[in-house]
Amino acid sequence: MTTPWIRAFAPASVSNVGPGFDTFGFAVEGMGDLVAARTSSIPGARLLEITGDDGSLPREAAKNTAGIAASQVLDRIAALDGRDKANGEDGVGVELRLEKGMPLASGLGSSAASAVAAAVAVNAALGGHLSQETLLHCAIEGERIACGAAHGDNAAPSLYGGFVLVRGKGTPRIDPLPVPEGLSCAILRPHVAVQTGAARALLGDHIPLANAITQWGHAAALVAGLFSGDYELISSAIHDVVAEPVRREWVPGFEAIQRAALESGALGCSLSGSGPSLFGLCRSQEEAQNTLAAMQQALGSATDLRGDGFVSVVGAQGARVLAAGEKP
Amino acid sequence: MTTPWIRAFAPASVSNVGPGFDTFGFAVEGMGDLVAARTSSIPGARLLEITGDDGSLPREAAKNTAGIAASQVLDRIAALDGRDKANGEDGVGVELRLEKGMPLASGLGSSAASAVAAAVAVNAALGGHLSQETLLHCAIEGERIACGAAHGDNAAPSLYGGFVLVRGKGTPRIDPLPVPEGLSCAILRPHVAVQTGAARALLGDHIPLANAITQWGHAAALVAGLFSGDYELISSAIHDVVAEPVRREWVPGFEAIQRAALESGALGCSLSGSGPSLFGLCRSQEEAQNTLAAMQQALGSATDLRGDGFVSVVGAQGARVLAAGEKP
Repeated sequence: MTTPWIRAFAPASVSNVGPGFDTFGFAVEGMGDLVAARTSSIPGARLLEITGDDGSLPREAAKNTAGIAASQVLDRIAALDGRDKANGEDGVGVELRLEKGMPLASGLGSSAASAVAAAVAVNAALGGHLSQETLLHCAIEGERIACGAAHGDNAAPSLYGGFVLVRGKGTPRIDPLPVPEGLSCAILRPHVAVQTGAARALLGDHIPLANAITQWGHAAALVAGLFSGDYELISSAIHDVVAEPVRREWVPGFEAIQRAALESGALGCSLSGSGPSLFGLCRSQEEAQNTLAAMQQALGSATDLRGDGFVSVVGAQGARVLAAGEKP
Repeated sequence: MTTPWIRAFAPASVSNVGPGFDTFGFAVEGMGDLVAARTSSIPGARLLEITGDDGSLPREAAKNTAGIAASQVLDRIAALDGRDKANGEDGVGVELRLEKGMPLASGLGSSAASAVAAAVAVNAALGGHLSQETLLHCAIEGERIACGAAHGDNAAPSLYGGFVLVRGKGTPRIDPLPVPEGLSCAILRPHVAVQTGAARALLGDHIPLANAITQWGHAAALVAGLFSGDYELISSAIHDVVAEPVRREWVPGFEAIQRAALESGALGCSLSGSGPSLFGLCRSQEEAQNTLAAMQQALGSATDLRGDGFVSVVGAQGARVLAAGEKP
């Protein structure tokens, strides 16, 4: 017995956002992943097809962030139903198709978007009984098992949308933060790959207390700026003295791109997640277009790299089930 | 030529406030220092008298936080007037009387209150030409030279009042944060002395990155809670995983007092500054009275120490010149 395909879209996201390493994230529009799911009489989760990844993602569901998130959802639904073995013989199965709509290893939450889209699609295909909070945990488990680490700072904004504060590992607490009207971002992705795990290891286990104090001062200031809609205060807070100084070494032309963004009027500019993508924060979409052009020009002048970019509101809509024929 | 005595009051303050080490501070009411100043034909700052300190503070102006802050103000006014040598033969002098209204080494910003009161009194005695920002820098210099370190997280709330975010050393940037109606604190001071310098050295130069992430997540959440007036969110944020685990060892009965505060309904409880005072954050003055009683009882049960305490609004009025005969 199969149900019709249910499609869910989950957006890309910018995490860290300057001072909020592992703590802040916001959803963007215009980029994300699609997962189609339908029930199957074969227990467990099966990945029928992945498109848009140039064949680079594992096809085996148990090794794929979307497949694992789907399996987690099956387990949770089974637990709700009082069944012990979700993926056993008495279990329900799902078939998945994953359509990658965003590049891998870009710093834009690619694995989180796949996991979130899978969790939302599978839950919807099975009747939609799980809470958003449970879906978040399923998605984070998908990321964690497939990638070795997950902090929720991409999965939470991708699922809920908006700008979120993430605290705690495993089952993080999520609090939404307001976004001033018009706040937008330019995102530039230089065509180099950064592996999140390696980027993280480089940071080391300890940081100078003085840097930590600077960082939490700016994290506090960014929240104050978001609540008060004070762009100057937001601008004063977009500084990362912990991860950026290490990770920018991996992004050729980083200083030139950052300088170009600030000179074009951006409120701030830093790495999105562990990079190589950079975000420039701007007062409006129009300013973000100017900033993007300046960042692209700087990339071209300072390096031999190519790059692509786009402009988005800060804190776009989160993951959602699409109607038949609807485009994300 | 002498002018009449001008008296200024500067309140005690709670710094750190859980997650905001060197970053958050708020003024309290009912405790603080008084400085009286009048001009003198003898250049420089002279301390005529200190009361309320049991003779423990240096009487020499150049070694006393109030005396140094006063001297800084003289220098700044001289610079405004185009005079090179503020304290030289062509300079104006001031005489000071310092009335300590709060205990030393209590974690309640005693040296900051003296410095702020002196800066405000001397500026007023000389015509009040300096900005609040300049007075803050004079007070911080007073603290820094007399005590070896100053971060502004006591001086800024003592001068400006309210709840403030402090970023940067030397000339820190200060941003005010809103305080929800009714937010109050119970403050208990166990009668043991903690020297700020020694308390700081114990923290070491580096901290685990994981703790730093926890800390800035809570710092961000506390700001979100203050803006939204969400007491549950504020409560979730009053945790200090950086300084408290080290410094609580110096405060006998800390765990028992903290537990009693939380069980009595406090939103959170941690050390004020480097201790030994503790604050309990509460929804109202009435709740703060209950919390204070619980904290006092716990101190008495768990230790042989005595302690004194009081209740205050969070974010009281800042430093001010008093009218003749006015009590602070």
